[in-house]
Amino acid sequence: MGNEKYLKSVIIDKISENEAVEFNDVTIDESRLNLYLNGEKTISMMCIPVDQDAHAIGFLMSENVISDIDDIEEFTVSEDGLRVDIKANINEGSLENLYKEKTLVSGCGGGITGNIAGNVEVAFNQVSFQVKPETISSEVKKFYAESELYKLTGCVHKAMIYLLDGTTVTAEDIGRHNAIDKVVGKCKIKRLDTTKSILFVSGRLSSEMVIKAVMHRLPIIVSRTAPTYLGVQTAHKHGVTLIGFARGKKMNLYTHSGRIDV
Amino acid sequence: MGNEKYLKSVIIDKISENEAVEFNDVTIDESRLNLYLNGEKTISMMCIPVDQDAHAIGFLMSENVISDIDDIEEFTVSEDGLRVDIKANINEGSLENLYKEKTLVSGCGGGITGNIAGNVEVAFNQVSFQVKPETISSEVKKFYAESELYKLTGCVHKAMIYLLDGTTVTAEDIGRHNAIDKVVGKCKIKRLDTTKSILFVSGRLSSEMVIKAVMHRLPIIVSRTAPTYLGVQTAHKHGVTLIGFARGKKMNLYTHSGRIDV
Repeated sequence: MGNEKYLKSVIIDKISENEAVEFNDVTIDESRLNLYLNGEKTISMMCIPVDQDAHAIGFLMSENVISDIDDIEEFTVSEDGLRVDIKANINEGSLENLYKEKTLVSGCGGGITGNIAGNVEVAFNQVSFQVKPETISSEVKKFYAESELYKLTGCVHKAMIYLLDGTTVTAEDIGRHNAIDKVVGKCKIKRLDTTKSILFVSGRLSSEMVIKAVMHRLPIIVSRTAPTYLGVQTAHKHGVTLIGFARGKKMNLYTHSGRIDV
Repeated sequence: MGNEKYLKSVIIDKISENEAVEFNDVTIDESRLNLYLNGEKTISMMCIPVDQDAHAIGFLMSENVISDIDDIEEFTVSEDGLRVDIKANINEGSLENLYKEKTLVSGCGGGITGNIAGNVEVAFNQVSFQVKPETISSEVKKFYAESELYKLTGCVHKAMIYLLDGTTVTAEDIGRHNAIDKVVGKCKIKRLDTTKSILFVSGRLSSEMVIKAVMHRLPIIVSRTAPTYLGVQTAHKHGVTLIGFARGKKMNLYTHSGRIDV
């Protein structure tokens, strides 16, 4: 898998029943990625330095700084992996908003956002299709079974986009926001049509996570854990089907249940 | 406990074995708190609107914008709970840094920070004292047993500061950063001496969490889950004892083991 390069060895004392034993353990790498947009330093993010280009592209599209993947002329990742350069046709207003709002988000892996609930102007998602609960249950199971970095370090979040033809795209990061930005960026770079798709995330669904689904027109978002009230309201308002506590054959359906074929 | 006011009712469909049943559930409130410093809007944070004053004070001290609780002349929370006003003698440089760095942190509940690893100039924590692993194990147990909002919503992080005389101060939030800022702010407002103390957190220990311990001179940080490599390095460099995977009588000791009396 090549994941070894994101792992760093540490020597620890394992304590158990008041005895300490020296032990070689691994921890996940955490680096500061610098994002340059049209030659200017725009922002930095603390993340696992993998899928850096997808991360930057997904983030900028989540924030509406870039509207369309075709507005990007060029993107490069530096050799040390800690700098992404993007040349693109950008929405200056959204970029200014990002700084002006200076809203610290609550969720793992986020940071600031200009797209806060109530501020997002995107048409209601009317996409109509149905998935069976069994599909969600079986994909949730695979989603967790296949998280190698999590198994090794207990320290990552994962996101996956599932297309109705069975295609899946996944990404992992120390932050749940980053994992979503990365997986969306990967789909954009591959030019996959995600109009009818399901976003699976390992973390809680606070409003910013739902806003990312809104911005990327992802119609269904599924988590193993809980949404916040603002997360539920945001999904309700923008036509996103929100599912929480998806565990085994159980799940809680919070909004727009019409897409789930029970 | 008065926690009801941070809970919001939602009607959901509980799906199990392909059957849906309507159910009245609760979710945690998530609000945007606006922080005004000396009359100017400084920043907003997505959080649970409780302990707002402690949250704002803890955050500003984590970022070194305010050096000492006595530099604060006045702090007020608006009636709707969504605005904190602080009048204080501030470090302009740190405030500028906060914006200039524009670093998106990876951890839940964070946001931007000017205090990134390698940028923090605080003397090595030399505080010398010892605690027994049993103390940590029994406090971890209480820490989880007493998290009411988590039990109700599955959607909060918790932080606790334990003083050697047995005093504990706790705070909860949707974000793990916020929970730390709140608990530190509460200790500052109460003017508790935290020189010899243990910070317990429910979330993973990425570098920003450790930096908060560094900034507040908290000598020991304990989590039930994993640190990142940069978290370990930061603790090592600044004299913080870092303990992860504290579960039952087991725990992993990553740095500065001298404070743990095995």
